[in-house]
Amino acid sequence: MNTDTDKRDFPVSNVRRYLEPGPVVLVSSKWQNETDIMTLGWHTVMEFVPSLVGCMISSANHTHEMIRQSRECVINLPTTALTDTVAGVGNSSGLEIDKFAEFNLTKQRASRVEAPLIGECHAHFECRLHDDVLVDTYNFFIFEVVKAHVAAQPEHPETLHYRGDGEFMVAGGTIDRRSLFTRVL
Amino acid sequence: MNTDTDKRDFPVSNVRRYLEPGPVVLVSSKWQNETDIMTLGWHTVMEFVPSLVGCMISSANHTHEMIRQSRECVINLPTTALTDTVAGVGNSSGLEIDKFAEFNLTKQRASRVEAPLIGECHAHFECRLHDDVLVDTYNFFIFEVVKAHVAAQPEHPETLHYRGDGEFMVAGGTIDRRSLFTRVL
Repeated sequence: MNTDTDKRDFPVSNVRRYLEPGPVVLVSSKWQNETDIMTLGWHTVMEFVPSLVGCMISSANHTHEMIRQSRECVINLPTTALTDTVAGVGNSSGLEIDKFAEFNLTKQRASRVEAPLIGECHAHFECRLHDDVLVDTYNFFIFEVVKAHVAAQPEHPETLHYRGDGEFMVAGGTIDRRSLFTRVL
Repeated sequence: MNTDTDKRDFPVSNVRRYLEPGPVVLVSSKWQNETDIMTLGWHTVMEFVPSLVGCMISSANHTHEMIRQSRECVINLPTTALTDTVAGVGNSSGLEIDKFAEFNLTKQRASRVEAPLIGECHAHFECRLHDDVLVDTYNFFIFEVVKAHVAAQPEHPETLHYRGDGEFMVAGGTIDRRSLFTRVL
């Protein structure tokens, strides 16, 4: 699995490369002396500059309150190497267990936030809460990605895409249609 | 390609099955006598009941104004059979062309909204604008899916997932981890 030693800085304005395809992510948080992790599939890119990502984090998750308090988190990108971990993290509560210990995950220091990176993931997006206007009404947090780290290889990580009911779609092949893009976005 | 004749009603509370994996979608709209289509990758499921989906639709898109006026749209799910169409729709403007005519797409009547379904797509989610609170500030529309139609086959459509720069990831295999889900969500 990847460790942070082989990761490179990545432009925050282009995190859509990893998040727009819709992978399940692991959100890590820290508040006071506690850390937590949750599995999240309900997120969307919202802007390039500033680099905004919207996340629907139910108040039933312990992470919800931790992020309300700390106003930051890290969005980590797992691959199929972590399938059982993704399922396990999503089916347990940080109120009851220490998920880093339980799932044998490596805490690594982030650059811009206190929440830890999850070393075994392919990429890490350090986030600060940008706007909480929809937190009370929809549990919807708008984050700014303030720092991004991505593994140099593989170019196309085998990400997991949740369909519900315990079933994941796995990232498949690549189709290049650059020739059809008059305005490359 | 699919036509609507082989599509079935699908529970709106479970549209996450198709949208949560993060596919590019084609958003169709109608206002007065005009229709439009846009390609969209920036969307997220927000709630099961009511069935809410958030979409970031830039005001640079003609569709943005059409939806502001009509307060409805259809989210259509294309597959790799429509790759060139998805690219073409995303690289043209409804101010200049009639996209249904230009890309030879079939308008079909929706059940609950005036906007047309795109017959060649695998699934259709008829939407009404549920909350416009973030439209002015973030171009973010919160829709309620009021009716869903999905093709009976294939079970796992080969959807397109945009990475930017003219490149798509294609939906790959399936991993079933139902056994690890204590609370099946």
